[in-house]
Amino acid sequence: MTVTARRVAINTGGGDAPGLNAVIHGAVYAARNLGWQIFGIRDGYDGFLEPQNYPGGGGLVELRRSAVREISHLGGTILGTTNRGDPFCRPTRQQDGTFKDVDRSDELMDCFRKNRLDALIAVGGDGSLGIAHKLQSKGLRVIGVPKTIDNDLESTVLTFGFNTAVSFATECIDRLHSTALSHQRIIVVEVMGRHAGWIALHSGLAGRADAILIPEIPFEIEKVAAHLCRKHEEGKAYSIVVVAEGAKPVGGDVTVRSREAGRADRLGGIGETVAARLQELTGKENRCVVLGHLLRGGSPTAIDRILGVTFGAAAIHALSMGMDGVMVALNPPRIDFVPIQQAIAHLKLVPRDSEFVLVSRALDICFGGGE
Amino acid sequence: MTVTARRVAINTGGGDAPGLNAVIHGAVYAARNLGWQIFGIRDGYDGFLEPQNYPGGGGLVELRRSAVREISHLGGTILGTTNRGDPFCRPTRQQDGTFKDVDRSDELMDCFRKNRLDALIAVGGDGSLGIAHKLQSKGLRVIGVPKTIDNDLESTVLTFGFNTAVSFATECIDRLHSTALSHQRIIVVEVMGRHAGWIALHSGLAGRADAILIPEIPFEIEKVAAHLCRKHEEGKAYSIVVVAEGAKPVGGDVTVRSREAGRADRLGGIGETVAARLQELTGKENRCVVLGHLLRGGSPTAIDRILGVTFGAAAIHALSMGMDGVMVALNPPRIDFVPIQQAIAHLKLVPRDSEFVLVSRALDICFGGGE
Amino acid sequence: MTVTARRVAINTGGGDAPGLNAVIHGAVYAARNLGWQIFGIRDGYDGFLEPQNYPGGGGLVELRRSAVREISHLGGTILGTTNRGDPFCRPTRQQDGTFKDVDRSDELMDCFRKNRLDALIAVGGDGSLGIAHKLQSKGLRVIGVPKTIDNDLESTVLTFGFNTAVSFATECIDRLHSTALSHQRIIVVEVMGRHAGWIALHSGLAGRADAILIPEIPFEIEKVAAHLCRKHEEGKAYSIVVVAEGAKPVGGDVTVRSREAGRADRLGGIGETVAARLQELTGKENRCVVLGHLLRGGSPTAIDRILGVTFGAAAIHALSMGMDGVMVALNPPRIDFVPIQQAIAHLKLVPRDSEFVLVSRALDICFGGGE
Amino acid sequence: MTVTARRVAINTGGGDAPGLNAVIHGAVYAARNLGWQIFGIRDGYDGFLEPQNYPGGGGLVELRRSAVREISHLGGTILGTTNRGDPFCRPTRQQDGTFKDVDRSDELMDCFRKNRLDALIAVGGDGSLGIAHKLQSKGLRVIGVPKTIDNDLESTVLTFGFNTAVSFATECIDRLHSTALSHQRIIVVEVMGRHAGWIALHSGLAGRADAILIPEIPFEIEKVAAHLCRKHEEGKAYSIVVVAEGAKPVGGDVTVRSREAGRADRLGGIGETVAARLQELTGKENRCVVLGHLLRGGSPTAIDRILGVTFGAAAIHALSMGMDGVMVALNPPRIDFVPIQQAIAHLKLVPRDSEFVLVSRALDICFGGGE
Repeated sequence: MTVTARRVAINTGGGDAPGLNAVIHGAVYAARNLGWQIFGIRDGYDGFLEPQNYPGGGGLVELRRSAVREISHLGGTILGTTNRGDPFCRPTRQQDGTFKDVDRSDELMDCFRKNRLDALIAVGGDGSLGIAHKLQSKGLRVIGVPKTIDNDLESTVLTFGFNTAVSFATECIDRLHSTALSHQRIIVVEVMGRHAGWIALHSGLAGRADAILIPEIPFEIEKVAAHLCRKHEEGKAYSIVVVAEGAKPVGGDVTVRSREAGRADRLGGIGETVAARLQELTGKENRCVVLGHLLRGGSPTAIDRILGVTFGAAAIHALSMGMDGVMVALNPPRIDFVPIQQAIAHLKLVPRDSEFVLVSRALDICFGGGE
Repeated sequence: MTVTARRVAINTGGGDAPGLNAVIHGAVYAARNLGWQIFGIRDGYDGFLEPQNYPGGGGLVELRRSAVREISHLGGTILGTTNRGDPFCRPTRQQDGTFKDVDRSDELMDCFRKNRLDALIAVGGDGSLGIAHKLQSKGLRVIGVPKTIDNDLESTVLTFGFNTAVSFATECIDRLHSTALSHQRIIVVEVMGRHAGWIALHSGLAGRADAILIPEIPFEIEKVAAHLCRKHEEGKAYSIVVVAEGAKPVGGDVTVRSREAGRADRLGGIGETVAARLQELTGKENRCVVLGHLLRGGSPTAIDRILGVTFGAAAIHALSMGMDGVMVALNPPRIDFVPIQQAIAHLKLVPRDSEFVLVSRALDICFGGGE
Repeated sequence: MTVTARRVAINTGGGDAPGLNAVIHGAVYAARNLGWQIFGIRDGYDGFLEPQNYPGGGGLVELRRSAVREISHLGGTILGTTNRGDPFCRPTRQQDGTFKDVDRSDELMDCFRKNRLDALIAVGGDGSLGIAHKLQSKGLRVIGVPKTIDNDLESTVLTFGFNTAVSFATECIDRLHSTALSHQRIIVVEVMGRHAGWIALHSGLAGRADAILIPEIPFEIEKVAAHLCRKHEEGKAYSIVVVAEGAKPVGGDVTVRSREAGRADRLGGIGETVAARLQELTGKENRCVVLGHLLRGGSPTAIDRILGVTFGAAAIHALSMGMDGVMVALNPPRIDFVPIQQAIAHLKLVPRDSEFVLVSRALDICFGGGE
Repeated sequence: MTVTARRVAINTGGGDAPGLNAVIHGAVYAARNLGWQIFGIRDGYDGFLEPQNYPGGGGLVELRRSAVREISHLGGTILGTTNRGDPFCRPTRQQDGTFKDVDRSDELMDCFRKNRLDALIAVGGDGSLGIAHKLQSKGLRVIGVPKTIDNDLESTVLTFGFNTAVSFATECIDRLHSTALSHQRIIVVEVMGRHAGWIALHSGLAGRADAILIPEIPFEIEKVAAHLCRKHEEGKAYSIVVVAEGAKPVGGDVTVRSREAGRADRLGGIGETVAARLQELTGKENRCVVLGHLLRGGSPTAIDRILGVTFGAAAIHALSMGMDGVMVALNPPRIDFVPIQQAIAHLKLVPRDSEFVLVSRALDICFGGGE
């Protein structure tokens, strides 16, 4: 604990999430309070590995208070987050013009050394944190800050970005209610959530959905259709179905069967499949709306700003206490520090008997399975 | 002008639009001020033509002040707007279970007579207003209120719903900026506008788009790609392209060529086609977001509420002055009354040299054609 | 646990808070799932004690699913919450026209009995929960649901309404930034928080305030002024100061001294006093904005809706398990049940060394004391 | 028309308004399209007259496209708008430390000449435009862009900022409805509008107010109270009253009488006076909320952004056509150019028989006079 960092770097990797700038804000202020210098690496590790793109050494920028004072409310990340790939197996153009995966981690470590950087604060999802962990093995001091809009990391109760995504998804669902009601339609809303259904569960519950389909509870489309028809007979003539992008039917292949072969992956996700099947089964006109990237952008909510600055400051605090290889985590009301490898080992999935699933069922919301 | 209406009906037809409830609010208050009774027909003309769906005669409801006092800020329409089709050629189930188009307009006229309704205020798009006009020919007194979220009626400067659509589209585009910037991506945003590009033009200009593609200016995708590349070289590493759903390439068939045969119409509109082509031409990663029905719902903006109540009150005013067969229109600062047939005869398209197109071009926004 | 409630009542008391309707939604669905009947008492206990105001016995209304299906996103409470006072010492008009405090609790108990109500779900702040507790002593079965927009109850980590208040306060502060910056002014924003500064702390931290004044940390106005002047010299030419309505200076009487005698209490709260003193001390032009009741209204955020339905459902769950005299509380990820008396005994104040206070200080936010 | 400007300046004066940055955006792009240089003067004329505050000549900054590309959606003005006073009679510190009004316009003209600036685009209200007009008399070429959040300039149908103010005021009124309803209270909302009641009229009509008090229609408070009581008896148990800050009672002195002597002007505007009087007259509990500066800030709405960029581009267009001494104005669908002096000569007041006043009355909204 006697030797502490004096020049630290920070970068942001993977898909953007509202609150990244707040993390930077928190880290820079906390570092400056200790008299440290702090630098941002541009665009993941590109600022180091693709110097030709940053004339005048612009791949690494010193971050002063004045530069980050007014950013915590902005979406995106001032450092950028394009991802040309893992430094350990990075697609690199060869002299003959072809690309080959190359381990450029030694070169990367050199960049840290040449710039006399004592430590890295890596803000990212499990991919970025895995890379950070490998850099630690090579001798770099590393603190991780978790970023997952899906809120699917077991080691932290909450991460920034999730609340903004849920809030905007809920606002969009609110808007769709009036159309669904006026037209007596089924509207299917697809939200993010490849492995975990937290966004779908929270926004569906807040948005008064009739059904919520999540990866953790494989659904039977016939059950969903029957549920909507029963509610229709009880007087609710329209329906809202919220579907996580990773939701899948029992058995897992109904999706495939209902889609014509050869369609490009980007066209027609699970939301459209569900919509098409529900139309067949219920005979009711329907529409599918894919919120997708709308949920990643925009100004972070108050919660996500607070989480962001707190995580950023905590990362510096961890360094100042001599920690290494840990990830910042929220364990209310405390901030904890968890070994990175352990932190990213387990996804936090929606338990079938979690409080909010039970409440949703009590509110007559169907999950299409496990009933 | 001596004989004025005493019992009037109002209905809402076609796709919903924010402000419909404000129209109802305005009409009911204005009618009650004159001591008139006013009734709402449910779900277009279904309240009359499908009485079996409305037990207890619920297809026609008297509207009192207290019922509409707190609705002008709500999206959708309290009267409903499902559309089982034109009363003049309405798909009707036969005894053998098949459907046949049947002219049920006489039956409809009977309903008006039996309920001693002197007049109808028909709130709707050109389809609904066309029907209203034909009912007028059969002897029903009719006043039209224009509803087109696309703002594409030549006879009125503005209709309710448009401002809400543009506002929310702009908010969505704002959100996409941070993601596009952080990832240095092209994001294509598809908005409503089958024939006219007003929503795309306004939201694209307000949303700092790099390109706006509208039906009125057929685009060359190569020009759009070249434009984005030039801006990229000038330092703007990401792009926002706003596309009206009715935008089409010069010649009109590039769209088709770039889409695999047989794909269902609902999957992959022009937005995704443009995105796919831009990816090919620029090599930059991109995403497409289809706002679609998000633009129809939600609470109307202040402008749309004001327009709505004003149009509703004006429709009653027109009846009180003995008018018939006219549509309410905004001709600032006046409210005008235009013969329905004439009102719906001409679409208001975006002129290529309109002020906002010129300003957009001055702001380095590309239309992909006509340059 | 053998005898469970079959006919239960619910009421809402005290100031309104976003999420009350979600509580009602949750309670009604959960009760109906058990086959129970559930009734709403209008306007606190007025529905029972002032029957003359509710013709036709309208003071008690049976709540069916269909009546609450579409309310959880609405602000306010469908049951009303006017407060004519504590049933145990209620200002009651005498025959001579004067008012006298009368204990009408026996009469109230009679109403519950006559309506064969087995239990009451009382949704309210410490005042309302205290009354509920006294009714329990008289033999009524009672479950409490905590409502405090200030989030100042120690027994629950979070209550509904707080997140909505913080979110809108943050949005307002965001808006004031642009004006403060353009004019290089100090803007003082007063928010709710009579005893606890949670709203000020969270919205100030999220809203990039320069100073946050809360009841828990008495401030020295000179310290605040010096802090703003120092930041000004460092290049930040404008300031945002967030003040909880219950903030007070060290010693507690500076406030009084700086206000002219005799001013009505409603005019000029602590926000204006702070603004006036800062103007004197810094010489900088300033403005005060009092957010007040803007924070109580509006559609609840996703979090507050979810909390609301969960609390409502949990209250019924408590009854079904035979509980009595307990308050629902959030102890993530569990819902707990705490004896009402104990639950309302302690306010949850902001600890001077809480995580968010420390982070705020790290971000160069001044509390005006305790530094 | 042969000699056109080549180096032009732009500044922003008076209170800020959403859309100022859009004007700058539009002007810079349009100027650069012509190959012109364009410079921003900081903080009104301070960038020239207080050079000591702008080290390194920073009072005048060249504006490039890249600097303004991403500002049109931001509130405030990147150029600043502090107002140390009219250059023609500017409070100036003397050597003995006192302040004296000094005509510093010659010095100002010198600054324009020394910087070889051919013209000024002055964005401001009537004060700023009046100054610009006087500078024109001294030989400076000037184009004005109108800025008045109150929308009270007769020569233009609309100015930027107004729609944002109305939209946010309406959102705030929406929020207050739920509280007013739950508590059955009167809530008085004071909005901007010293001379003209446009904001109050539009937001009150959109916000379903029960009464709207504007400067153009002096009110009798007894009429307002009677109106609210009548509605109460008809079943509407709460009220929203929207008051423009410049509203005044018939005779104009009731206000004064109802306020205790000696209260500082900033405390207790007309909103609180109205609230206090209504409480006396109706006996109903009430609250006053002053929106004030909340209406000036925040991101401009789509309309205000579009108006802003259009006005900015039009100002450059005017210069390119050889115009001088004119103000840009909207005369839909055209942009007009009006002599500045004439443009600012007349306020646009709300006509007592304007369409929206008549519609408001039809909706049972009381103006407290002229009925």
